[in-house]
Amino acid sequence: MKGFERLFEPQSIAVVGVSDDPVRPASQTLHTLLRYGFGGRVHPVNPRYSEYEGLRCYPTIDAIEEDIDVAVIGVPARGVIPVIEGCAKKRVPFAVVLSGGFGESGAEGIERQKQMLAIARAANIRIVGPNCLGIANIHRDVYAAFGSMTRPPRLERGSLSLVTQSGGFGVSLALACATAGIGFRNVIATGNEADIGAVEFIDALVDDPETDIILAYIEGLNDARGLLECGRRALHAGKPLIVWKGGVTDDGARAAATHTANLTGRYDYCRALFRQAGIIEITEVHEAADFVKAFQARRFPRGRQVAVMGGSGGSAIVFADAAQKSGLRLATFAEDTRRRIAEVIPAIGAVHNPVDFTAGYIGADDEKLSTAVHAVLDDAAVDAACFNLATSAASACHAAARVLTSVVAGTTKPLFVFLALPESDAAAALSVFRSANIPVLPSPVRVARAIATLASYREALEQHRRADDVGRSASAAGAAEAVPSGGGALSEVESKAVLQRSGIAVTRDVVVRSAADVDFAALSPPLAVKILSSDIAHKTDIGGVKLDVRTPDELRAAIDEVLANARLLAPQARVEGVLLSEMVKGGFELLAGVVNDVVFGPVVVVGAGGINTEVFRDTACRIAPFGEETAREMLGELGCRRILDGTRGRPALDVAAVARTLALLSQLAWHNRARISEIDINPLIVLPSGAVAADALIILNAAGEGDASAE
Amino acid sequence: MKGFERLFEPQSIAVVGVSDDPVRPASQTLHTLLRYGFGGRVHPVNPRYSEYEGLRCYPTIDAIEEDIDVAVIGVPARGVIPVIEGCAKKRVPFAVVLSGGFGESGAEGIERQKQMLAIARAANIRIVGPNCLGIANIHRDVYAAFGSMTRPPRLERGSLSLVTQSGGFGVSLALACATAGIGFRNVIATGNEADIGAVEFIDALVDDPETDIILAYIEGLNDARGLLECGRRALHAGKPLIVWKGGVTDDGARAAATHTANLTGRYDYCRALFRQAGIIEITEVHEAADFVKAFQARRFPRGRQVAVMGGSGGSAIVFADAAQKSGLRLATFAEDTRRRIAEVIPAIGAVHNPVDFTAGYIGADDEKLSTAVHAVLDDAAVDAACFNLATSAASACHAAARVLTSVVAGTTKPLFVFLALPESDAAAALSVFRSANIPVLPSPVRVARAIATLASYREALEQHRRADDVGRSASAAGAAEAVPSGGGALSEVESKAVLQRSGIAVTRDVVVRSAADVDFAALSPPLAVKILSSDIAHKTDIGGVKLDVRTPDELRAAIDEVLANARLLAPQARVEGVLLSEMVKGGFELLAGVVNDVVFGPVVVVGAGGINTEVFRDTACRIAPFGEETAREMLGELGCRRILDGTRGRPALDVAAVARTLALLSQLAWHNRARISEIDINPLIVLPSGAVAADALIILNAAGEGDASAE
Repeated sequence: MKGFERLFEPQSIAVVGVSDDPVRPASQTLHTLLRYGFGGRVHPVNPRYSEYEGLRCYPTIDAIEEDIDVAVIGVPARGVIPVIEGCAKKRVPFAVVLSGGFGESGAEGIERQKQMLAIARAANIRIVGPNCLGIANIHRDVYAAFGSMTRPPRLERGSLSLVTQSGGFGVSLALACATAGIGFRNVIATGNEADIGAVEFIDALVDDPETDIILAYIEGLNDARGLLECGRRALHAGKPLIVWKGGVTDDGARAAATHTANLTGRYDYCRALFRQAGIIEITEVHEAADFVKAFQARRFPRGRQVAVMGGSGGSAIVFADAAQKSGLRLATFAEDTRRRIAEVIPAIGAVHNPVDFTAGYIGADDEKLSTAVHAVLDDAAVDAACFNLATSAASACHAAARVLTSVVAGTTKPLFVFLALPESDAAAALSVFRSANIPVLPSPVRVARAIATLASYREALEQHRRADDVGRSASAAGAAEAVPSGGGALSEVESKAVLQRSGIAVTRDVVVRSAADVDFAALSPPLAVKILSSDIAHKTDIGGVKLDVRTPDELRAAIDEVLANARLLAPQARVEGVLLSEMVKGGFELLAGVVNDVVFGPVVVVGAGGINTEVFRDTACRIAPFGEETAREMLGELGCRRILDGTRGRPALDVAAVARTLALLSQLAWHNRARISEIDINPLIVLPSGAVAADALIILNAAGEGDASAE
Repeated sequence: MKGFERLFEPQSIAVVGVSDDPVRPASQTLHTLLRYGFGGRVHPVNPRYSEYEGLRCYPTIDAIEEDIDVAVIGVPARGVIPVIEGCAKKRVPFAVVLSGGFGESGAEGIERQKQMLAIARAANIRIVGPNCLGIANIHRDVYAAFGSMTRPPRLERGSLSLVTQSGGFGVSLALACATAGIGFRNVIATGNEADIGAVEFIDALVDDPETDIILAYIEGLNDARGLLECGRRALHAGKPLIVWKGGVTDDGARAAATHTANLTGRYDYCRALFRQAGIIEITEVHEAADFVKAFQARRFPRGRQVAVMGGSGGSAIVFADAAQKSGLRLATFAEDTRRRIAEVIPAIGAVHNPVDFTAGYIGADDEKLSTAVHAVLDDAAVDAACFNLATSAASACHAAARVLTSVVAGTTKPLFVFLALPESDAAAALSVFRSANIPVLPSPVRVARAIATLASYREALEQHRRADDVGRSASAAGAAEAVPSGGGALSEVESKAVLQRSGIAVTRDVVVRSAADVDFAALSPPLAVKILSSDIAHKTDIGGVKLDVRTPDELRAAIDEVLANARLLAPQARVEGVLLSEMVKGGFELLAGVVNDVVFGPVVVVGAGGINTEVFRDTACRIAPFGEETAREMLGELGCRRILDGTRGRPALDVAAVARTLALLSQLAWHNRARISEIDINPLIVLPSGAVAADALIILNAAGEGDASAE
C-alpha cells in the first residue's frame, strides 16, 4: 500500500511490552504473530526478560540490531513516550500504539497524545492509534494487533479490506462477513487517529491492487472533504466503498462525541456526500456481508427491472414488495419469453413475472429448468433476477445450483438466490453456489436490497463517467471576485449584487432614501417595499416590509411606514434607504441557501418555501461545488418537485433554471468558502421561464477570519 | 383448539393417495406420521394396495371401520371430489386437501373448488386448503402435511403457532425461528382457503392454552374486519400477534392477485388496522425470530428510555442511533447511578449512558460487573437495556452470561445482549443466556428494534386496557338516523345536514333561489357563494363558487354569475338554488373523509388540505369506528400537526375538536356503512376554538344496494 509498504508488509516487527501475563496487549500481538506464522522477524521488547517465547527479548527497542519496520507498542500509557523516543533513535517508520490513556481520557491523556505526536512528527514516525486494536494484513499474516482482531475465528484471505474507527464494532462487521464466507486483505482499526486517520487509509487502499472492496465504519468526519475525494477515487477505480456511519442521530452523535471526541457531522450532509461520491451506506450488520457478496459477483444490472422465479408464490410476492420499496420494479416479459417458459413448465404454473414453476418442479428436470431460467435472463427487459429456492428440498437445491451455475456462465446479469434452509441442511448446494459466485441470501428482502444497491452503484459509476458533474472543477464566471471586502451581513442590495455577478437572476430593485425620491413611472407594480439595512437581517420582524403596493399613494405611505417602523423598532440600525422591488407573480416559492459547515464546508440546500420547509421538512442538500445534473437530482428529492413539474392543471415550471441557479450558487460558495459563512435566497421564485431571487441575505465571516483556502 | 379439536388432536387419520412414489404428497404425509411417531392410528387409502408400509391399506375412505377425525387428501385434483364424497359418507369432520388444481388454476379449477365446497358444506366437513402444505400439531406429532413442512429440520416443541397463506414462505419464517432456538405448537398453511381462512385459525389460536405467540404471513384480506377483531382478542388475551403482510406494493399486490386471487387491500388501511388491533408487523425474516424471542422473555418496558453498556464504544453508538430511529431515547442516569457505576469501573470508562466499561473489563471481576449492571437497571429512568458483548472473548461472554442471569432475576426490565461471535465460538455463553431467557441478537440495530417493538406492544396493551377507545362499540347520537333515503350524491346542504345531525359543526348557510331572495342584513360577510345541485359534485370546475363576497352588490353579481355558469356549463343539472356560506377565517384547512372500502369497510382519512395533500401526501387513516384517543393518534401522524399545535407564533388550534369530529365521522360512517359509500369534508377548518365543516359531499350507495349489515 502506497506510503504504507513497511507497515503492511514488514520484514521485522518489534513488540514492546510483552509480559508473562498473556492477556496484556503486546503479549497477544506476539503470540498471534507466532501462532499464525508471520514470515518476517519478531523481536519482543521488555527490560525484565532476556528471552520471551524462545526469542531474544530486548530491554529497549533501540537495542535491537536490525532495522525495524513496525513497532507495536502495548506498554501502559505513561510508558509510551519513552518507547516512541526509542523508535525515533532507531528510525522506525511506523508505530502501532495499542495502549489507551490518551486523547480519549481527559486532560492528561490529551497532553500525552500531543507530546507523542510532536516527537513522532519530528522523527518521521507515522502512528496508528493510540487506543486502537491495531492493523492486520491477512495475506501476509501480519498482526500488529490485539483483542478481538487476534482471537478466533481467524479471518481467511480475500480481497475485502476493512477500516474502522471502532475496534469492537468493526470486528463485528468483519465476523459477519467472515461467517458469510468472505475473505480479507487488510483490517485496520484506527483508534484515536492521532496521526493517520481512516480517510488516509481508505485512500491508500484505493490504490492497493489486492483490495477490491473497502468496508468502513466511520464516526468522526474530521476530514469530510478527504472522504468525498477518496470516495470519488474509489468510484473511478471501480472499487466499491461501503460505509457504516455512526453517530447519525442526536443520541448517537452525543455518544460518539464522548467516545472519540470526533465531529460526527450532520447526517443529511453526510448522506449527500455519500451520494456524490458513490459511497454505499449500510445500516445493518448483515448488509456488510450481503453487499460485499453482491459486489464480488462482479455483475451489475443495467437498469432497475427485475425478475423473480421459483416455486414459492409467497416468497415471490415478498420479493416484489421489497423490490418496489427499494426502487426496483418487476419487468414485463416479452411474448417470446412467456412462450419459451410455457413450453417447459406445468400448465398450472405462471409464465409471467413472477414465474411460478409450481411445487416439485425444481430438481425434477434440470434441462427444463435451465431452459426456463435462460428464457428469463435472456429477456431484454430483465436487468437482474432472484431465484427463490425458499424451503426446497436439499436435493432440489443441489440440482438448482448446478443448473444456475451453467446458466450464469452465459450472462452478465446478476442472479441471486433466496434460500431459507439452515446452512447445515444445504451444504452441497451452498458449496456449488459459492464456486459459481452466485450470492445466496436468507431473505427475499435482502436479495432485493442487494440488487438495488448494485443498481445504485452502477448509476453512480455512470454519472461519474459522464463527468458531466465537473461543476466540482469548473470555475464559475466571476464567482471568485463576486464578494465585497469586509465582514458580517450584507444588505439585500449588496447580497443580490453578489448573486447577480455570479450569474443568478435577481428581481429588479430600486433604492430610494425617501418617498420624495420615487419616479413611479419607471416602476412596474406591484412592488415590495423593504427597509434596507445591513443591521436588520429579519426585516419582517420590525415591520420593515410592505407587499403588493400598486399606486403612487400606497407607495408613499409604504415608504413612510417602513422608515417609521425601523426608527421605532430598530433605532440602532444604520438605515441605507428603502428598497422597491418589482414583485414576481405566478411562480412557486422555493428557498435556496448555503451553509458553510464546519465539517463539510459549503453545502447547498434547497427546499419548498414558506411553512412547507418547517412543517414538511421538504429540503435536499449537496456538498458544493457541483454541476447541474447533481442539482436536478436534488430537486428530484423534493416532495414539491411535483409542483415544479406542473400539477393540477398548473404549468410546468423552469426546473432547468433552478438547477442552474443551484449549481452557480455552489460555485459561488465554493470559490469564496473562506469568506462566505451563509447565503439565504428566500424566496427563489420559480416561473414557467426562469427562476429569480426575490430576497437574499449573505453573511460573511468577520473580517480577517478568512483563511488561505480561498481560490 | 376450540372448534378444531379433532383436526389438531386426532385419534385417527386417513391418508388418501399414498403411492409407491415417495415424493407424492400423501406418501410424504404417511411417512412423516410414522417417522415422527404420531400416537394415534393412521390409515393409508389407495385401491391399488392392500398393504402400505406394513399398514392395512383401504380402497376408499368409507371402507375404514373406525371413525376418522382427519382425512388428508393428496390425490390429483380430478380425484378429490369422489374422496370428499367418501368423507361425507364416513362423516369425517375435517379434510386437509393438499392437492393443487383448484381456485388457483383457471376456470375449471374454480368450478371444482366450488363443487367440493358445496359437498363439504352439506356434509359439515370443514376443509383446510386445497393447494396447501397442510397443518401440523408439533406437540402431538400430528402432520397432516407434506413438502417443506415435513422435511428436516424437524421443528421442536414450543409455544409459537404459525398461520400462513404461503406454504413456502411461511415455512421459511418457521425455519428462521427454529434456527434461533424457538419451538412450535401448531403450524398451519391455509392454501386456497376454500373454507377455513387464516383469520379463523388465528382466532382459534387466541383461545389455545398451549399457544403463547401467533406468527402469521397474510396476503389476502378477505376478512379484514375479522382480523381486526381477532387482533383485539389476541391483545386482550396478552398473546402477541406478529404479522407479515404480503402484497403491499403495486408489484407485490399484482403478484398476489395471480398467486391466490385474494384481495390484498390498501397498505395504509392495513397498517391502520394493525395499529388499532395491536398487531406487530414484520418486514424482514429475522424479525420473526427476534420479536418472538423478545416476547418470550415476557418483560415489557414501561416507557421508551433505554440504556446501553459494554466495552465497545462503536456498538453503543450504533445502538443509540438505531434506538432513536426506532422511537427510543437514551435515558439520563441519576447522579446516584453514576456514582455506583464509578465505584466499580476503571477511571477511563464512562459512567453516563452509554456506559463504557473499557476493554477487558467484562470477565475480569464478576462482582464489579454485577454491581455496574444492577446500577443501570435500578435507575428509575431506564425502561430497558442493551448489553453489548460485541466481539468479547468467549470466556468473557460466559462470565457475562452468568452475571446477567443473576441480575435479571431481580428485575422486570427487558435486557438484551448484542453478540457478534459466531454461535460455535460462544456456545457456552449462549446456552446460559438461553436458560435465563435473555435474548441475544447479532446486531445492536436488531436489539433496538426488538425493544421498540416491545414498547409499542405495551402501549397498544395499555390503550386497549384503558378501553377509552370504546368508540367502536358506543353508539353515536343520532348517527343511525342521520342519512336520508335514496341514493347517489347528496347536495352540500343535505350533506351538511347529515353531518350536523351527527354532531359535527358546519358553517352557517342560507339557500336562496335568486339574488332577489337575499336579506343581506341577516348575513355576516365575507360570504362564499356556491351553486347548489346534487348533480354538480365539483362546483369549482364549472365556475360555481365565488369567495370572499363582502357587499350587497358583490353578492348580487356573484349569485347571478354562478347561476349563469351552471346554466352554461352544466345545462343538465337540476339546480336547487344558491348557497350563501359565512366564510370562516383564520383557521387551518384540513380535509376529512370516509372511504367505504371493499376490503376494510368504512375508513376515516384526515390530512392537510389543499395542495399539501397531494404533494406531501400528508394523511392519516383509521378503520371506523373509533374514539377520540385514536383520532388524536391519527393527528399525531400528520406533518401539519405542528401547525395545529401553533408554530411560528401562530395560536394553537383546537385539536380536541378535530379529534371529536373524526370520531363522530367514524360513528356516522360505521352505523350507516350499508348506505354511505363516501364522505368528503373539504375543507374542515380548524380554529383556535372549534372545527367547522365548510364544505361537504356525501355519496350514498345507489338505492337498494344497502345490505342488512347496517345496525
